[in-house]
Amino acid sequence: MSDPLVIAGREFRSRLMLGTGKFGSPSAMKDALEASGTEIVTVALRRANLTGEKDPFADILEHVDPERYLVLANTSGAMDAAEAVRLAKLAAAAGLPKWIKLEIHPDPNYLLPDPIETLKAAEELVKEGFVVLPYINADPVLAKRLQEVGTATVMPLGAPIGSNRGISTRDQVRIIVEQATVPVVVDAGLGVPSHAAEAMELGADAVLVNTAIAVASDPSGMARAFAMATEAGRMAFEMGLPDQLDNAEATSPLTGFLQG
Amino acid sequence: MSDPLVIAGREFRSRLMLGTGKFGSPSAMKDALEASGTEIVTVALRRANLTGEKDPFADILEHVDPERYLVLANTSGAMDAAEAVRLAKLAAAAGLPKWIKLEIHPDPNYLLPDPIETLKAAEELVKEGFVVLPYINADPVLAKRLQEVGTATVMPLGAPIGSNRGISTRDQVRIIVEQATVPVVVDAGLGVPSHAAEAMELGADAVLVNTAIAVASDPSGMARAFAMATEAGRMAFEMGLPDQLDNAEATSPLTGFLQG
Amino acid sequence: MSDPLVIAGREFRSRLMLGTGKFGSPSAMKDALEASGTEIVTVALRRANLTGEKDPFADILEHVDPERYLVLANTSGAMDAAEAVRLAKLAAAAGLPKWIKLEIHPDPNYLLPDPIETLKAAEELVKEGFVVLPYINADPVLAKRLQEVGTATVMPLGAPIGSNRGISTRDQVRIIVEQATVPVVVDAGLGVPSHAAEAMELGADAVLVNTAIAVASDPSGMARAFAMATEAGRMAFEMGLPDQLDNAEATSPLTGFLQG
Amino acid sequence: MSDPLVIAGREFRSRLMLGTGKFGSPSAMKDALEASGTEIVTVALRRANLTGEKDPFADILEHVDPERYLVLANTSGAMDAAEAVRLAKLAAAAGLPKWIKLEIHPDPNYLLPDPIETLKAAEELVKEGFVVLPYINADPVLAKRLQEVGTATVMPLGAPIGSNRGISTRDQVRIIVEQATVPVVVDAGLGVPSHAAEAMELGADAVLVNTAIAVASDPSGMARAFAMATEAGRMAFEMGLPDQLDNAEATSPLTGFLQG
Repeated sequence: MSDPLVIAGREFRSRLMLGTGKFGSPSAMKDALEASGTEIVTVALRRANLTGEKDPFADILEHVDPERYLVLANTSGAMDAAEAVRLAKLAAAAGLPKWIKLEIHPDPNYLLPDPIETLKAAEELVKEGFVVLPYINADPVLAKRLQEVGTATVMPLGAPIGSNRGISTRDQVRIIVEQATVPVVVDAGLGVPSHAAEAMELGADAVLVNTAIAVASDPSGMARAFAMATEAGRMAFEMGLPDQLDNAEATSPLTGFLQG
Repeated sequence: MSDPLVIAGREFRSRLMLGTGKFGSPSAMKDALEASGTEIVTVALRRANLTGEKDPFADILEHVDPERYLVLANTSGAMDAAEAVRLAKLAAAAGLPKWIKLEIHPDPNYLLPDPIETLKAAEELVKEGFVVLPYINADPVLAKRLQEVGTATVMPLGAPIGSNRGISTRDQVRIIVEQATVPVVVDAGLGVPSHAAEAMELGADAVLVNTAIAVASDPSGMARAFAMATEAGRMAFEMGLPDQLDNAEATSPLTGFLQG
Repeated sequence: MSDPLVIAGREFRSRLMLGTGKFGSPSAMKDALEASGTEIVTVALRRANLTGEKDPFADILEHVDPERYLVLANTSGAMDAAEAVRLAKLAAAAGLPKWIKLEIHPDPNYLLPDPIETLKAAEELVKEGFVVLPYINADPVLAKRLQEVGTATVMPLGAPIGSNRGISTRDQVRIIVEQATVPVVVDAGLGVPSHAAEAMELGADAVLVNTAIAVASDPSGMARAFAMATEAGRMAFEMGLPDQLDNAEATSPLTGFLQG
Repeated sequence: MSDPLVIAGREFRSRLMLGTGKFGSPSAMKDALEASGTEIVTVALRRANLTGEKDPFADILEHVDPERYLVLANTSGAMDAAEAVRLAKLAAAAGLPKWIKLEIHPDPNYLLPDPIETLKAAEELVKEGFVVLPYINADPVLAKRLQEVGTATVMPLGAPIGSNRGISTRDQVRIIVEQATVPVVVDAGLGVPSHAAEAMELGADAVLVNTAIAVASDPSGMARAFAMATEAGRMAFEMGLPDQLDNAEATSPLTGFLQG
């Protein structure tokens, strides 16, 4: 087993976080969460419900057991810092934990995050006592500034949300990991288990997966596959990874000990 | 659990094969074999011992239980077809199973296999009743010719032996898988668990790993990590893999069912 | 010949910009500038000289003919927006053109740019009437915000400065190009001519190269090679690029017109 | 200018070879050949015409001036060694130069070459006095065997013919170049000029391009672009290429000589 993950002083056994979007049904989601072994589940604070009378969190909380999972509200849909801060406060007021996944993406095509508004909102939410997990482009300088203002993690994207392209930001993620003083969570773009394993091998502390599991033909099976790959990648990272070599190293011919 | 692997009519639960070279000690090897869950273990028929009086297989068989593992002798070190065939027959004469991993690599730097000699030896060994698993460059035409002469698998390399470079032959492996009528085993170059997962996601039926496990700081832990990643990749492949997209697909905002 | 490049209303025939750092001698630099055919040359406003009595631009202007090249002062070394703005104004006061390459990289290891300070400085310099060309991480949202505040270009990095790694930010550069309303100049990381050609094929409007030319064994030869590759990539882009296919398309057998 | 290319004792100024398939018209082909500066043009010996009474080479020779270009007949369409040898002899009998591009690809989908038949045919044709340029998978051992039997070049593929995927066989091409005693020509898969530049930077001695030029909206323009990129890549290779670095090397701040 790999080491536990610690975020804001809280310990987690699983290094796989799950999103709740796009599942075919609440029960498919519930089963996948369970199969994944995850302990952190992110839930969108949907804009549409904010002014309604009905408690916007009623439904989701029926399906995500808060005793079992840390419900990590996200501000997906927020267009700027003010809106994200308002959403976060609303979530806290509604009784959700004061942990917030900060997502500000004005861009409608690629859902890429806004670095300026994200830093601004992060600063304010940290001051308000939130545990802040910001979703960002894989920008090492931004990641450093965020950890300096007190965010609990940084969450660089591997590739655009839902694109399944894996870690197209490999070089930058490597630098972010090298400079990190808080856990690095690779978020978005991970389409297959090998992507999750690779993120962990690069030194990420955790990964967040949503689309790839939610839309799989068997979400629970895919959740298990991602869990195994995440753990495998982490174990390898903790043991120390080999260098890539330019030429071969004979394996079999060198098994000296096999001779009498 | 993924489907079983079937080679030459024999069924295997594990899709991870292990090599026995380069381990620090026999006990480290034994433990790693056990931790990996492997059922197929490849052992070099070392040239040096061929003319000696001492049974060349005595030592290794003390450490690789033939009740538990299929001992797959390999012809590593053979420079041409004649030598490989001689080695294979010697192995059979010594009581090893008539399964042979055919490796002919005259090249001392990269240990790359010789396509001409490999096809020649494969033809002869198949006629002699061997179950032949040939190690080859990722050459789709050669793979096809080998399966046509009756080999039990094809084993294209991901990258040169011991290089840890992963699947640098991705495009060709994909074509080999598409055209295969026998199991495809990606062999050589897999340095970290994500490489094994990726091979399986590409549709390989199994992987063979040696150096990356044998030289790890904790060979048993690394064996477990590779086993998990291999299984994860296979599960994902069997469920069907998603397309890579050029732009994002919103996840959270679309969770329609979460609304009342 | 490809179309001309237009920045802030000014037309350039060459799409290759050169930096002046790291050359072995002023004459090597002069020769390389000439060989490259460049029309835009960037020069560092070195911090060390700012308070000195000696005109800090005297030397460099002896070697970069302002009649022939647009001298593009850069703020390399600036740690924040205030410092960058001060440097830019100093350059203008010293008689340099009011064109500024905005570089703010507090990070001493990778010289990666700061998104927050860069946007802040860009806003202010645009208001002051500067033509602003900001060096940024390959962040599509930041690129959009910069063009919205009125920068004349955006200059996403291909890879860290001086790393010769090429365009490791391919996916993001592609999105930046797609959303751009101003010219996109790929800056930093281009180590060999094929990198420059690839940037142009991706749709960049220009590239900036420094280290790879300055430290070459023959800077003038390398400058010519980069110029040719840049032009070649641009020509191909303007003609329209082919799709990548998963399988082959026979070439020779289909030459129908060759038959009588 | 880069060094001349020497194949079988004959010197060429251009390192770009062109194929003649798929052009929209003979005049488009003629113009593209001219624009490319090529000196070696490959022409398919079409199977269909072999038994006809009409001279199968009449048409093509009207469009490819043999005074200006070396007409390199290719055996595209041959399914095995015997057929390729027959085609080669037919070409020689018809008065074409005794230079043959050996292509044997029984595979109808990807047009990948057959290593066994190619070596067999190469041996025979060399004995018959042909200058043999074999098209092969990027297999370093096969390449070595071919040069040992006396072929004039080896022509590893970058990617399947017509796929435009560039050099997906990078690692193997690098090994082939390292071990080569004859010129290495990267053939097939080069879709854009940067691919040709990269092949040359890897140390290839020449490239062969067909589809990407023939089907371009402006074949002559694309031919020029490929010619420039090929030359640029070669120049860079001859000057010596820089290492890729993991982190940045400041450029501007180090321009020591610029200070008085």
